[in-house]
Amino acid sequence: MPTMQTVQTMIQTHPVETGVDRAQLARVVDLLVACSSACTVCADACLAEDHVADMRTCIRTDLDCADVCAATARVLSRQTAYNADVTRAVLQACVVICRACADECASHGDMHEHCKV
Amino acid sequence: MPTMQTVQTMIQTHPVETGVDRAQLARVVDLLVACSSACTVCADACLAEDHVADMRTCIRTDLDCADVCAATARVLSRQTAYNADVTRAVLQACVVICRACADECASHGDMHEHCKV
Amino acid sequence: MPTMQTVQTMIQTHPVETGVDRAQLARVVDLLVACSSACTVCADACLAEDHVADMRTCIRTDLDCADVCAATARVLSRQTAYNADVTRAVLQACVVICRACADECASHGDMHEHCKV
Amino acid sequence: MPTMQTVQTMIQTHPVETGVDRAQLARVVDLLVACSSACTVCADACLAEDHVADMRTCIRTDLDCADVCAATARVLSRQTAYNADVTRAVLQACVVICRACADECASHGDMHEHCKV
Repeated sequence: MPTMQTVQTMIQTHPVETGVDRAQLARVVDLLVACSSACTVCADACLAEDHVADMRTCIRTDLDCADVCAATARVLSRQTAYNADVTRAVLQACVVICRACADECASHGDMHEHCKV
Repeated sequence: MPTMQTVQTMIQTHPVETGVDRAQLARVVDLLVACSSACTVCADACLAEDHVADMRTCIRTDLDCADVCAATARVLSRQTAYNADVTRAVLQACVVICRACADECASHGDMHEHCKV
Repeated sequence: MPTMQTVQTMIQTHPVETGVDRAQLARVVDLLVACSSACTVCADACLAEDHVADMRTCIRTDLDCADVCAATARVLSRQTAYNADVTRAVLQACVVICRACADECASHGDMHEHCKV
Repeated sequence: MPTMQTVQTMIQTHPVETGVDRAQLARVVDLLVACSSACTVCADACLAEDHVADMRTCIRTDLDCADVCAATARVLSRQTAYNADVTRAVLQACVVICRACADECASHGDMHEHCKV
């Protein structure tokens, strides 16, 4: 059965050589996947809170962050026909949403200390 | 049953007012969703081609474009707790990948003239 | 620029012949994509409502429905190496979640009459 | 920074009690996320292979499996307003696609021994 450890090995043994540090690439993909999952769970946990009306911004930012991190992880996982411009642009967007998400979580002392890629 | 027309109406009657032109927002979401779907179909059609080995870059770019356009459509669909920085960053990344995808498709005179958001 | 009409044409001119009625396939993909988008907007509109605490089930079901419809649309969009068992299984799951979503929306007289694939 | 370990803890400390064994739920989500990621990497590695024309079924099945496992992981991650019918239906579809993917990978002695949820 696959684990994220398997995924890291797969990324590092990919047939194409792109010049990117693969061990680091594998770690970033791992982080993005974990961040996306953490945001999905956080949005759902916030939705269950008694004071859900105060959690609107957190829920919305979590949903955005989950979607963008998942898409970024997929783009970065691909090494065939690597395009540095695309990778950079997607990572930049991902940093902006992750920062927004981290700020929002920090603002209400949330116990879910996630989203800091 | 829902259509993209229904979705456009839903976006335009959303309870929150963000200051963004909603008719235009609805059109962009519509376009992004269609672009994501077109790229998914294009990647699959390229995969079936006899000369699939020549289509690697197109397939990979299509897959990236499908993922990023889908995530961008979701982020833009949300008007609760709107964040202009996040919207801008995600749209910028989306433009880069769509341009890469359009260039790639143009380069081999592909009949699938898509991905020009 | 692509529209869902373009996507329908692309599905119908795909190089592989699977035996499935393509016009119908194209319509189902169109419907699934619209349903996924409608659910994303509905979840966000519910999140903005004053009585958001009463909308928890609707929001959660919308999020599930958006994710499953999007995945189902992608699986159905692919005609290369078509697998009828996979298509059937994914469609069955999609029907269950769409029905749950339609029931939930109906239960609180929601104006967003979506999710009836 | 989040890891899948963080995600597991978040699932297990969620405010809602659904009656599902949470430690097991967290393990399944972890597995689904890893499977989705492994399939994304596998599809891309297959696309780079010299004999890509022989890998069409594997690539297509990988793409389906990545999409369905990602959607299933999201549905299972949500514990608010838990719906057993939806969970069961989505898991059943996921098992079918994972089995198809495992069979396909086994058939060409692929080194990427993934997708066995």
